[in-house]
Amino acid sequence: DHENGRQEAESENILSAFKTSAVLNDSAREKTIFIHGKVTDQDAVVILEKTPIRQDSLDELFSGSSLKLEMRNDIYSTYRLQAPPHLNEIKTTVVCPATEKHVKKYQRQESFLVEETAEDYQSITLAYIQKQSFSMQWVYNILEKKAEADRIVYEDPDPQVGFVLLPDFKWDQKQVDDLYLLAIVHQRNIKSLRDLRSEHLPLLQNVFQKGKEQILQHYKLPASQLRVYLHYQPSYYHLHVHFTKLGYEAPGCGVERAHLLTDVIQNLQSDPRYYETRTLCFPLRADDGLLGKFKEAGKL
Amino acid sequence: DHENGRQEAESENILSAFKTSAVLNDSAREKTIFIHGKVTDQDAVVILEKTPIRQDSLDELFSGSSLKLEMRNDIYSTYRLQAPPHLNEIKTTVVCPATEKHVKKYQRQESFLVEETAEDYQSITLAYIQKQSFSMQWVYNILEKKAEADRIVYEDPDPQVGFVLLPDFKWDQKQVDDLYLLAIVHQRNIKSLRDLRSEHLPLLQNVFQKGKEQILQHYKLPASQLRVYLHYQPSYYHLHVHFTKLGYEAPGCGVERAHLLTDVIQNLQSDPRYYETRTLCFPLRADDGLLGKFKEAGKL
Repeated sequence: DHENGRQEAESENILSAFKTSAVLNDSAREKTIFIHGKVTDQDAVVILEKTPIRQDSLDELFSGSSLKLEMRNDIYSTYRLQAPPHLNEIKTTVVCPATEKHVKKYQRQESFLVEETAEDYQSITLAYIQKQSFSMQWVYNILEKKAEADRIVYEDPDPQVGFVLLPDFKWDQKQVDDLYLLAIVHQRNIKSLRDLRSEHLPLLQNVFQKGKEQILQHYKLPASQLRVYLHYQPSYYHLHVHFTKLGYEAPGCGVERAHLLTDVIQNLQSDPRYYETRTLCFPLRADDGLLGKFKEAGKL
Repeated sequence: DHENGRQEAESENILSAFKTSAVLNDSAREKTIFIHGKVTDQDAVVILEKTPIRQDSLDELFSGSSLKLEMRNDIYSTYRLQAPPHLNEIKTTVVCPATEKHVKKYQRQESFLVEETAEDYQSITLAYIQKQSFSMQWVYNILEKKAEADRIVYEDPDPQVGFVLLPDFKWDQKQVDDLYLLAIVHQRNIKSLRDLRSEHLPLLQNVFQKGKEQILQHYKLPASQLRVYLHYQPSYYHLHVHFTKLGYEAPGCGVERAHLLTDVIQNLQSDPRYYETRTLCFPLRADDGLLGKFKEAGKL
């Protein structure tokens, strides 16, 4: 239709006008690349990621592709397969205009493990978060249905225990093997795991229970196939919970950054101030402003 | 030339004659798929892996592809990019004829998350461990220097708080990027995380402290570059601690199986019975005998 036609014409322009200035990061294992450049005079970050190979397209892939033999040895042979473009798409994300912060976010960096005491949180981390005053507008757009409304899988509209469940950008929703959803809570005053107290147990239990039920209903994936967790530090300071498929090594599911929701709930049940008082460890990238603050305070 | 022409004609045949019988494994993250099937009457395994995105083909990729807009929100937009086939090949490996052994080698095992209460541990897990009576002889051989003595990096010989530090088999020790060492404790009565009580704090703190010091000394890697953790379930029931480089996504470092030693220490400091009483989550593979026991008990 007209709207689609206009959108596709528009979209064709954006990358042909793109001038690469630097590759920020890439992964041969994951078939991704992060590029910084310019679209006309605006800074932009372009992320390319090859799509997973889909089982349901194998027949068409095998019959519609051409093969170039590379090597043959006994029972083993290798080929380069050239597939019809529609069966072999590349997921493309454009951030434009991109700020310095976006460029840094995607730049490859060493990480350092920080041990944050309760006092460090107050004097270093909280002070840093408040000074930065990161915009949460894109989160509020989702919660208010001003953006991405068609992507919402489920909503519990309750202002205290409610949340919106939607796919993470990283997931193309074509297969459940790399299922990745986010539950973004309606409450706006919980920045992160650090702010959680026993009063938040009804919220956490509601997200855990309904999130699992909805994923079973929509994707036929039972709770025993899910990894449900929070990040600390999160990438944005509005409470959200990650749901990923067990067995899919989602970025950020490592023990140094992820906290199983079931552990969080148990910890708050036995100690209402667990996350207020505990020393928490997390990795920070070399260029993270927060790491600089920990260094200045002589904590690293 | 003639030879190439013949090879390409030949290669075109092999996949169009391929009949898929089962997907053995796939990885959405790595964009790979392992397929079992038949070429005419012969068993075959076909492995497809998308190729990494090459920096030197970006200009051609951007100018020669078409883009379909998927989503737009504020400064973020996502597209499906359809690339010219020669810029977006799929590496294809064919094993033909394939034996039963090839098929098993590539077969994936699903994992399931188990929630083990304190009672489940006593009645299911502990009973299973004791019945299996896994041999720990290879561990005792290391502790007694009857095997692998030349691989030992450091030893604290104290029978209560001492341990042996040595490289994990997965690490080839050629570079520190994938550093992986194990500390195996001298005490023989601690099966796993579940057995840990506050009385073990001096042992855990000694392993943590001296392990970090020794790694700094031998490999110039400071503690801020290390991920130090236990597995639950462990792969053998004699207490050991994993030291891996932060940023190296070591197998088993996911939040569903790994427990940071620093968290373990804090949890025992505030609650001596934390690991005795807590419900613990962990993944088990479909073919794991312990999973069968949880299923028999109606816990999954």
